[in-house]
Amino acid sequence: MAGNTFGHYLQATTFGESHGVAVGCVVQGVPAGVPLTAAQLQRWLDRRKPAQNALQSQRKEADHAEIMSGVAQGLTLGTPILVLVTNQDGRAKEYEQLDHDFRPGHADWTWDARYGHRDPRGGGRASARETVARVIAGAIAQAVLDAWSLAHRALPITAIAWSDAIGDVRANGPPPHAITGLACSGWAFAPCTLDHAQIDCSLVRCPDSDASAAMVAAIEAAQLRRDSIGGRVRCVVRNLPAGLGDPVFDKLTATIGHAVLSLPACRGIEFGSGMASAEMAGSQHNDPFVPGSQPLRTATNHHGGTLGGISTGMPLVFDAAFKPAATIAQSQGVADAKGHVRSLAIKGRHDPCVVPRAVPIVEAAAIFCVADALLGLHIARIQE
Amino acid sequence: MAGNTFGHYLQATTFGESHGVAVGCVVQGVPAGVPLTAAQLQRWLDRRKPAQNALQSQRKEADHAEIMSGVAQGLTLGTPILVLVTNQDGRAKEYEQLDHDFRPGHADWTWDARYGHRDPRGGGRASARETVARVIAGAIAQAVLDAWSLAHRALPITAIAWSDAIGDVRANGPPPHAITGLACSGWAFAPCTLDHAQIDCSLVRCPDSDASAAMVAAIEAAQLRRDSIGGRVRCVVRNLPAGLGDPVFDKLTATIGHAVLSLPACRGIEFGSGMASAEMAGSQHNDPFVPGSQPLRTATNHHGGTLGGISTGMPLVFDAAFKPAATIAQSQGVADAKGHVRSLAIKGRHDPCVVPRAVPIVEAAAIFCVADALLGLHIARIQE
Amino acid sequence: MAGNTFGHYLQATTFGESHGVAVGCVVQGVPAGVPLTAAQLQRWLDRRKPAQNALQSQRKEADHAEIMSGVAQGLTLGTPILVLVTNQDGRAKEYEQLDHDFRPGHADWTWDARYGHRDPRGGGRASARETVARVIAGAIAQAVLDAWSLAHRALPITAIAWSDAIGDVRANGPPPHAITGLACSGWAFAPCTLDHAQIDCSLVRCPDSDASAAMVAAIEAAQLRRDSIGGRVRCVVRNLPAGLGDPVFDKLTATIGHAVLSLPACRGIEFGSGMASAEMAGSQHNDPFVPGSQPLRTATNHHGGTLGGISTGMPLVFDAAFKPAATIAQSQGVADAKGHVRSLAIKGRHDPCVVPRAVPIVEAAAIFCVADALLGLHIARIQE
Amino acid sequence: MAGNTFGHYLQATTFGESHGVAVGCVVQGVPAGVPLTAAQLQRWLDRRKPAQNALQSQRKEADHAEIMSGVAQGLTLGTPILVLVTNQDGRAKEYEQLDHDFRPGHADWTWDARYGHRDPRGGGRASARETVARVIAGAIAQAVLDAWSLAHRALPITAIAWSDAIGDVRANGPPPHAITGLACSGWAFAPCTLDHAQIDCSLVRCPDSDASAAMVAAIEAAQLRRDSIGGRVRCVVRNLPAGLGDPVFDKLTATIGHAVLSLPACRGIEFGSGMASAEMAGSQHNDPFVPGSQPLRTATNHHGGTLGGISTGMPLVFDAAFKPAATIAQSQGVADAKGHVRSLAIKGRHDPCVVPRAVPIVEAAAIFCVADALLGLHIARIQE
Repeated sequence: MAGNTFGHYLQATTFGESHGVAVGCVVQGVPAGVPLTAAQLQRWLDRRKPAQNALQSQRKEADHAEIMSGVAQGLTLGTPILVLVTNQDGRAKEYEQLDHDFRPGHADWTWDARYGHRDPRGGGRASARETVARVIAGAIAQAVLDAWSLAHRALPITAIAWSDAIGDVRANGPPPHAITGLACSGWAFAPCTLDHAQIDCSLVRCPDSDASAAMVAAIEAAQLRRDSIGGRVRCVVRNLPAGLGDPVFDKLTATIGHAVLSLPACRGIEFGSGMASAEMAGSQHNDPFVPGSQPLRTATNHHGGTLGGISTGMPLVFDAAFKPAATIAQSQGVADAKGHVRSLAIKGRHDPCVVPRAVPIVEAAAIFCVADALLGLHIARIQE
Repeated sequence: MAGNTFGHYLQATTFGESHGVAVGCVVQGVPAGVPLTAAQLQRWLDRRKPAQNALQSQRKEADHAEIMSGVAQGLTLGTPILVLVTNQDGRAKEYEQLDHDFRPGHADWTWDARYGHRDPRGGGRASARETVARVIAGAIAQAVLDAWSLAHRALPITAIAWSDAIGDVRANGPPPHAITGLACSGWAFAPCTLDHAQIDCSLVRCPDSDASAAMVAAIEAAQLRRDSIGGRVRCVVRNLPAGLGDPVFDKLTATIGHAVLSLPACRGIEFGSGMASAEMAGSQHNDPFVPGSQPLRTATNHHGGTLGGISTGMPLVFDAAFKPAATIAQSQGVADAKGHVRSLAIKGRHDPCVVPRAVPIVEAAAIFCVADALLGLHIARIQE
Repeated sequence: MAGNTFGHYLQATTFGESHGVAVGCVVQGVPAGVPLTAAQLQRWLDRRKPAQNALQSQRKEADHAEIMSGVAQGLTLGTPILVLVTNQDGRAKEYEQLDHDFRPGHADWTWDARYGHRDPRGGGRASARETVARVIAGAIAQAVLDAWSLAHRALPITAIAWSDAIGDVRANGPPPHAITGLACSGWAFAPCTLDHAQIDCSLVRCPDSDASAAMVAAIEAAQLRRDSIGGRVRCVVRNLPAGLGDPVFDKLTATIGHAVLSLPACRGIEFGSGMASAEMAGSQHNDPFVPGSQPLRTATNHHGGTLGGISTGMPLVFDAAFKPAATIAQSQGVADAKGHVRSLAIKGRHDPCVVPRAVPIVEAAAIFCVADALLGLHIARIQE
Repeated sequence: MAGNTFGHYLQATTFGESHGVAVGCVVQGVPAGVPLTAAQLQRWLDRRKPAQNALQSQRKEADHAEIMSGVAQGLTLGTPILVLVTNQDGRAKEYEQLDHDFRPGHADWTWDARYGHRDPRGGGRASARETVARVIAGAIAQAVLDAWSLAHRALPITAIAWSDAIGDVRANGPPPHAITGLACSGWAFAPCTLDHAQIDCSLVRCPDSDASAAMVAAIEAAQLRRDSIGGRVRCVVRNLPAGLGDPVFDKLTATIGHAVLSLPACRGIEFGSGMASAEMAGSQHNDPFVPGSQPLRTATNHHGGTLGGISTGMPLVFDAAFKPAATIAQSQGVADAKGHVRSLAIKGRHDPCVVPRAVPIVEAAAIFCVADALLGLHIARIQE
């Protein structure tokens, strides 16, 4: 349990350094009989990969996923699925100057404190390149959900995320309590019917076209200033069955929180009305039941899809905040373990804003937690 | 791994229903040789227990902790420590009307969806009474930290939390980036030197006396309206060594996030500058190193004590948001599984605002994660 | 995972020292809706408890099981089940002489090496008293199996074990390969139809009455010599469905091996033809299929109910060897950590032969592993 | 936790099907700073690989190990180590006839029962080819032990195993109780000073040259009869520190038992005097302490190196029994799920006796458990 494995029934173990030979993951606990191809994984990876446009890191990686085990004749075997992505465009040399230096806002310092020996090349395993593996795990989890939905004649369970804010630009979508699965009007988009194409047609993955343009401008301005900029991702999981989540520690909110807070640069997460619920009264926040609804529903969704940490069947809604990328092209003070500080403009290829590329990663994290919880639901009670 | 166990090296398993025979926990992985007495646990439990004042639930529970195993001659044995707290003031009868009904904002609905059979008495295991066990686990973790500090001649590692906001009343303390471990002036209090007495002398556990009075008034107003109110807890962990946290999934932020988000009524968590970091530029958010500092420090603490999810040695700072308690004395619609909704004013004894009692629970969650990470640090590298 | 928890989907955590306040366990992962009463647990505990007859330790323990959580209205809730057994007849004083001494063949030595601080009273947690908790866990697992069988209209899954050898006296039952689930003649008893009454009517729990008398004589002779004697338990699990066991590490043989080898005094385990299979040819050991059998069966059972570590549906058969109890009334050399050895006749109440009381403990271990594997089977493939 | 991961502090997750793209493992929990090269792994793999001589499967596999992550500049990083071995000489076509058939004594039957969908090619993941991964994990564990011994100025911890019996031929080595770490005479070899060269110079890995010749003859005779033959491996771990093993479930005997019983074809395991201890008296089996020994030792080693499941510091001794390989060239009945049985002589390349190649696999299993336990020892008590 040394920190590289996530999940209870469905488990992903990730491996790989940013400028090492390869990154990837082993996923265990996938039931046998799930249709799975490398092409399915590739679709997810293509949304995460760098250099999709000028607002992103220009590292050239095809991020080509190879399934090395666990699948035969297009179906999962119930055995571990190893997926490997070979690193192609590592430029280890660029980091040689940093062998013993700590960049501000980076993990160099803390990895050195913890391990003594570390891989200085591009952050090693602390790099966001590790999220390649998380996206793969999410894609496999999605395949599990799809097979389950088909077998149980249920609506497909899907996650949709978008850049909800970049810097001080906010998308004009409905607030969480208005995301109820029903049609909603008066906003720039409707989260419960959004598809990936509507997200990906925006350079910054924001489905509100006005906000999208302003976000692009904000990132470009940051680039010009040799600076970086933060933002927020909102994610909605749709068609969840009720009953997902393991009380008391492994509430769905807690496992998703764990997965998302362990993403690089993530600094906070909130569910449903989230931080704002702290300022509300119970009579406002308690969502009223819809009389006659079957399955039971609520009229509003302040609760964001979970009560007691278990899914209600309403859309699951959460927001994650990402700090501005620590790597900027300005000169900054770098330190060594002895407290010597010198000024340096750090090289390396980085995103001026990580938020647009975080979108599919957040979806993957959510979907993985949901699929894990779904497997757990099957053994939560004695049934035929 | 069915959701009732938390931690990797140090592991707590909690048990118990709100109106069952007892609640408590088994804690494994405590090293042998740690001084531990029931009195130490009791000090923590006394801060959490109900009916400490008129702003809290009037359920009368002594919350008397009994150590049933794992300790001999005042020292831990390295074996599991079972701590039991017998329930004394359960009033199961008050809940009989609710056998098949779901209260709005409560977990009745989702537990029914998940398990079919549930304990309707006071929320059963979904009740905040389960947090008795978490406070015990935190108290044991503190004993581990204390023994470790003593053996390593290090400063004591302590957590201090307080009610930072109730409704729209906010305490006037320094923002996270100014919580650097050094003296800070210009605020109503200094987080790095606060002790529990300074917190507990406030009825609402807010060390800013002006804000405290306003918070008391806000809760009393909510009580008069037969309503409830939410709020925020801020927590600071002091004297952390650098190097704590297991990349990549079990970053200290992720495990603390997991622990805190699994607390009843918690809706969000943010670290350091948190949600606000989304609106910042990298050049603002990157904390500059202090030249010549040994151990290395930063001048500001936007990073809130972790980089790459591993502790830097700076104070760990996080905020948690709690929704207003779902139980209110007003009539509300309760539903059953078939969608029938009827109006009901629910009985039972509850806190109009959970935040003051959440304070020691949040501390316990943080301390447990820190102690777990500290044990992990000991096997992170080959050393003599 | 500090050694006190066992199982994957169904998990038991045991606690308690021999002469501490209590022993017991928390069992997680029990599905909701399983009928469970303290009386069911008591039936198992009564078979394990000491002082059932003159061949056993005379420590007087009622071993009264109290269910403290996880059950309401006679049904499991899906939450952790804490069962507590208070120690009644500890005689800590008898062990005072041993505070710093190591008894030969005992764990005093190794616990001291590992933990520095240990509980010298009766072996502390290394005592066989800890198996109280394992029997409780087995009884709960049996309840899960019974509920499952009922829900799936399957034959009840049961374990039957007996003393197959004590010293050099062997029971005259069929060899493993002849234990096929069908009637078998020519032996003193038929394992597939044995019930607990037929086992328990023997003082030594051997269903072969001639061997039973000889075993009683052998134990009495050892008692007279102030000595102890070893033996073997054979266990058969009946009506297992095919498909139980998690390849590759958690084969049913491996998990049962783990559980049984972790019992005090156990020195070996073998499955089916076991050690003897080492001397066989493949053409002998390969069990031929029975043409037309449905579900498929084999004519012989050299494989002992598993192939590739997964159950075939044939009876699961294994043998466990137990060493002679280390505590004997003769004078022996006791040592301290510095190598000083002195002669001492150790007091305390102990079994001259642990095998008869090991019988229900071995059954409990097997049933627990089987129930755990059964839950795992439910998520091994995508199904409606 | 779906059966493909082993270990607590050090964890190996294996993946791969026999005729898939690759097999290998990810090992987590390796401390940072351990010297590790592919060449070290290769030395272990070369001892396990097929076609080393005419008594083994003629499948041609170089078993070339590639380290894909977790190592930089020749030292481990504390991050997961992925090691990949590409399959080269799979002959999937040979197995096409078996798509829906179950071979006697094989796992085809049970995998089909469990998963519905399986990989029929050479047993898929049930193949002994999976043990490539276990040998890699053992080699990495050995590197951890070596680095630890160096850092602590301790004697190197090593495992040595050999073919102790094949069919009815037995090696003439000392019995377990005579394996005490001191010189022993009167036997064909001395287990405490054996090295791998003395084992590997025998075609069947038996250090008793007379027995070795007889074993070779026994295997050749089985080959001629188109049959297979079983045997036993004995393993001794030398220079263990006292205190290894996690009571109560994760005793060193239990974890080694788990690891070894999960090896293909393993049918039993016994520690120290093992099964024979069942026929002994306590006064015989209790090993007397050696007065004045420092660290403390016993004169004999019936206990086989553990008491209470924790290492004493004496040599750890255990035996494992392997059944005759299920694949034989004779015609046998193969069945399908409906009970149809037909006669078939199965093709494919297999070992007529798995024991010689099991030798390094058993060593790897033991070393892995020992290294895992060694890491656990470091957090078992509070120490500076």
